[in-house]
Amino acid sequence: MIMAITEISTPAALLDVPRMQRNINTMQQRMNSLGVKLRPHVKTSKCVAVVQQQIAAGASGITVSTLKEAEQFFAAGITNILYAVGMVSSKLAQAKALRDNGCDLKIIVDSLDAATAVVEFGRAHGYVFEVWMEVDTDGHRAGLKPDGDELLAVGRALHEGGMKLGGVMTHAGASYELNTPEALQAMAEQERSLCVQAAERLRATGLPCPNVSVGSTPTALAAQHLEGVTEVRAGVYVFHDLVMVNVGVASTDDVALSVLTTVIGHQKEKGWALVDAGWMAMSRDRGTQQQSHDYGYGQVCDVEGRVIDGYTLTSANQEHGILSLAGEVDSDIARRFPVGTMLRILPNHACATAAQFPEYIAVGDSGTQTWGRFYGW
Amino acid sequence: MIMAITEISTPAALLDVPRMQRNINTMQQRMNSLGVKLRPHVKTSKCVAVVQQQIAAGASGITVSTLKEAEQFFAAGITNILYAVGMVSSKLAQAKALRDNGCDLKIIVDSLDAATAVVEFGRAHGYVFEVWMEVDTDGHRAGLKPDGDELLAVGRALHEGGMKLGGVMTHAGASYELNTPEALQAMAEQERSLCVQAAERLRATGLPCPNVSVGSTPTALAAQHLEGVTEVRAGVYVFHDLVMVNVGVASTDDVALSVLTTVIGHQKEKGWALVDAGWMAMSRDRGTQQQSHDYGYGQVCDVEGRVIDGYTLTSANQEHGILSLAGEVDSDIARRFPVGTMLRILPNHACATAAQFPEYIAVGDSGTQTWGRFYGW
Repeated sequence: MIMAITEISTPAALLDVPRMQRNINTMQQRMNSLGVKLRPHVKTSKCVAVVQQQIAAGASGITVSTLKEAEQFFAAGITNILYAVGMVSSKLAQAKALRDNGCDLKIIVDSLDAATAVVEFGRAHGYVFEVWMEVDTDGHRAGLKPDGDELLAVGRALHEGGMKLGGVMTHAGASYELNTPEALQAMAEQERSLCVQAAERLRATGLPCPNVSVGSTPTALAAQHLEGVTEVRAGVYVFHDLVMVNVGVASTDDVALSVLTTVIGHQKEKGWALVDAGWMAMSRDRGTQQQSHDYGYGQVCDVEGRVIDGYTLTSANQEHGILSLAGEVDSDIARRFPVGTMLRILPNHACATAAQFPEYIAVGDSGTQTWGRFYGW
Repeated sequence: MIMAITEISTPAALLDVPRMQRNINTMQQRMNSLGVKLRPHVKTSKCVAVVQQQIAAGASGITVSTLKEAEQFFAAGITNILYAVGMVSSKLAQAKALRDNGCDLKIIVDSLDAATAVVEFGRAHGYVFEVWMEVDTDGHRAGLKPDGDELLAVGRALHEGGMKLGGVMTHAGASYELNTPEALQAMAEQERSLCVQAAERLRATGLPCPNVSVGSTPTALAAQHLEGVTEVRAGVYVFHDLVMVNVGVASTDDVALSVLTTVIGHQKEKGWALVDAGWMAMSRDRGTQQQSHDYGYGQVCDVEGRVIDGYTLTSANQEHGILSLAGEVDSDIARRFPVGTMLRILPNHACATAAQFPEYIAVGDSGTQTWGRFYGW
């Protein structure tokens, strides 16, 4: 369906396709020049049309955060899939069903308990999973210590239990808390070196470790070299968002996702305009709250996408956003943004905001298209 | 589909049906004894099976936050619908289409600009909308001042413009910030008296004002009398949540919605268990953060729904929740919650958490059923 932006029913998730393509190309070219493969994390878009563009640009396989994502993208023809959340017994039958149908699904574990569960399932079903081991390189979430004994014990348990050892993977999510090139480069080097260390320790004991997978958008865009790494995973770069702007790896002109909204009223004495994008549209993500610039629930732009400095969504109810000038009362708010005015709001966190919508309105040079996305598990 | 809870794929949104029915009955009986009608806000559940139980218990019509909700519930046979978000020109055709099909949809405005837009559309199409006026009784969001001139001007503009004046409505959302019976009763009385004042001022100028609609879950459960009010709107009471527990109008035993999750790993030295309910399942809502008890991303319960004191989701990534003992390291975490353990997590904000799921697993005395819900606009 082709329509003008002003004909779109609000709120709506707009995708600026040229910006998205630039983001995709920038990351792919960076990975090409660093000599590693790129395995985009598709949890950001959950959209086949978006991921097909990442594949077309050179991505070799994808990363997923749910088995539903694996099923949906496998149905769309993508076979090389890493499920990057720790596997548990109750999900092994679903993973096996995907593999039985031809999906080259790799699963991960980060403990002897989880490895044992995979081995036992494999034994009971005469089945070999490809298993990668998650390594903790920044202390922010899951993973085996790269210098610990359990890493080797898990590798041995999987190998001796008949599973295929696919490699090691890590995610330096702590990079989201940084905001200088020096700190980001240091985190990228920490992520790289500790993951490579884990791989080398496994190989030194005679265990196979073909893949060494690292990544987060900030470290992927900051890394100076990736010696010993075979692939990088990154997700949010495809759309970028205000968190990434604060981290310093994007500008507002790179943010490809915005929420189209309409002004529905005012509280003039308070300097508020009320818009029909509340937290149901923006999500409750306040990712910029602790960063250098707090954008509230999002940065206000005009309908063409030009940033209107100082105006943010300062508060949100389910279907009401409160738009105001940060720090002062704009007594002219009703004249500046009359009822019916359409605006775009840049999101704090693209993954969270996109998840609120059943579809994107993809805005390209030749008009608009509707691109479906899925949700749930 | 009937299945045991332990066979459910996680994460999943569980509905404790007996608790929900108790919440529905408690609110309906309270409204009956206060002598007012109940018009539940269905933005909480967005589920026909849930709303049908509210109607069966005695609700007279529903409140919606989007025109999609109006369309979905009208398709399910409910005709008396109040769309409780300020109307703008671009949505009038959609509202008219609903009414043309037989839906008794009422719309709201809270400014002369919005009223003028409705009148102009009505004139252009020879069409009469039933319009209610939103009144601001607590300063937290939208609405006309009950003692201001614009209220009367809007009423006159609608009436003289040929629209049907349906009444006045208000929502004391500021009640969510209170936590004593005295403060809640005072807010309920403020909401009631100011909304009735607005109605009386309209009537004194000769304008019709048949309906006087107030409500929020806290004020609905606190009001001592509702003289002059014709109906109450409330939403979250149907499920309740931890925000309502902190407000003091529910206990954790009243919370009917929980997220079923599985332990997928540990960081033993940190006292963390990792679960497969991250913010994609819980939502990013941190509604209890500023309240008397901060539940993080949710209160941990065992698989049967019994609260495990002190354990909450203290942090969340997209598909990872970090479960820990608030304020100290539980060095026994891996033995207490082994990999594969199933748990239920009570949500901060039921409306936000429910919105993350395509369906509820309704758990009743005779087994489980899948109840679909919708999203989007």
